[in-house]
Amino acid sequence: MDRKAHSYHDSHATDRDIAFFELGIKLAALFHIAIGSPIQNNTEVLNQIALGLKKSIECQPFVKKADVSINLFSENGEYIFTKQHPYDYTTITGKNLQAEVEIQYKNLNLVGAVKWIPELNYPFMSIKKITQL
Amino acid sequence: MDRKAHSYHDSHATDRDIAFFELGIKLAALFHIAIGSPIQNNTEVLNQIALGLKKSIECQPFVKKADVSINLFSENGEYIFTKQHPYDYTTITGKNLQAEVEIQYKNLNLVGAVKWIPELNYPFMSIKKITQL
Amino acid sequence: MDRKAHSYHDSHATDRDIAFFELGIKLAALFHIAIGSPIQNNTEVLNQIALGLKKSIECQPFVKKADVSINLFSENGEYIFTKQHPYDYTTITGKNLQAEVEIQYKNLNLVGAVKWIPELNYPFMSIKKITQL
Amino acid sequence: MDRKAHSYHDSHATDRDIAFFELGIKLAALFHIAIGSPIQNNTEVLNQIALGLKKSIECQPFVKKADVSINLFSENGEYIFTKQHPYDYTTITGKNLQAEVEIQYKNLNLVGAVKWIPELNYPFMSIKKITQL
Repeated sequence: MDRKAHSYHDSHATDRDIAFFELGIKLAALFHIAIGSPIQNNTEVLNQIALGLKKSIECQPFVKKADVSINLFSENGEYIFTKQHPYDYTTITGKNLQAEVEIQYKNLNLVGAVKWIPELNYPFMSIKKITQL
Repeated sequence: MDRKAHSYHDSHATDRDIAFFELGIKLAALFHIAIGSPIQNNTEVLNQIALGLKKSIECQPFVKKADVSINLFSENGEYIFTKQHPYDYTTITGKNLQAEVEIQYKNLNLVGAVKWIPELNYPFMSIKKITQL
Repeated sequence: MDRKAHSYHDSHATDRDIAFFELGIKLAALFHIAIGSPIQNNTEVLNQIALGLKKSIECQPFVKKADVSINLFSENGEYIFTKQHPYDYTTITGKNLQAEVEIQYKNLNLVGAVKWIPELNYPFMSIKKITQL
Repeated sequence: MDRKAHSYHDSHATDRDIAFFELGIKLAALFHIAIGSPIQNNTEVLNQIALGLKKSIECQPFVKKADVSINLFSENGEYIFTKQHPYDYTTITGKNLQAEVEIQYKNLNLVGAVKWIPELNYPFMSIKKITQL
């Protein structure tokens, strides 16, 4: 199956190229699946939503492990999203989502991450760790 | 806050109208958040993904309870999605998602559901139960 | 087909109940499909992305018309998202999305809307207009 | 800005590694944004929905060009999704979505694609073309 899959890539793509390509796929899939999901500032609720996302991304090809966390949210201390009234909740955004995904493709183990980088004003996806097996 | 929110609706909208409107919102939000998430045929994994979706929808206004389940999947017995090789997984679709959402708005308790109806070839959203409190 | 569909609802659900239920479904579907899509501050680009969303929602049952617009975005005048560098873009959020959906179900014509209400700190979905045909 | 962004990656990540990582991100973002959007078998409607997706992905960092098409759908000739009745529509899935994304990162120009590969029973993302500038 792997060999079949490999044959669909350009023949100049190396195993290393494909490994980084796959890492990018995983992080973006996770991000776009998560964004927009309702959350509130309750640690147990946040943990269960994060666990569901982790388990889902771990179903994807080559994923060894995913870690997902959703940060508690406060904006000027004014909006606290603890369900004090029906509309008191928010959603997962690029600002409160943090995740790491570890994949293995052939003899490369890669860890990628997504988190909000204030300096970039951006939920930046990065290559955290490269391990040759 | 409720009164403020109510003032944004057409003045001819009754509490009952708003209750059914809110029920529709919840089911469609759940559906579109869930669709496309990776899954595999492992009951524990499916349960944890379903639990994450339940907890997320329960953060929305007026939701009393959500129940989500993802059905095991087989297509002609051929594709079984148990992660026997890296590509052996599928995603949540209208065919394998089942959910019920219970909301309370003013003195109405409503239960809505979404599930695949083969006769309609459609993941149909329905009003299951109407209870006057 | 309509009669078949109707039979899946609780028998106490009136046509009016179903109409408001369907209106809620359309707005939430639109919202969750749109959220997270990359955008930049270029009117033509925003219009084409909005048009794609409009056309998609108009495929749903009972929709007569959808209008979608995405507001130009600026945050303190600092982040202007005009693609001055590769990371200079943002995504559709509850704050910059505005939409109206008109549906007809039996003899009711309904218009619903979603837009950010600063007072509620919330992308509020409302019933805008109820017309008996 | 690029240099700042680069500093968030592992120092062993080469420009080539980052280029393939970014290519994977674009394809998965496109896929998960598109999946679940309502469509029907009307060429003009499909083209406008596809154009909206193309324009959105072209807002992402390093994207030179995206091409998106949504295939007409028929299942055993029975379900044709032409809006002959309100429920006669379908949604974008891994089976009817086809897209290519071209990015440029430093001196590499890469084209990636996603389309359904029946042999793999999978919407496979592939590296189509690698050009050193």
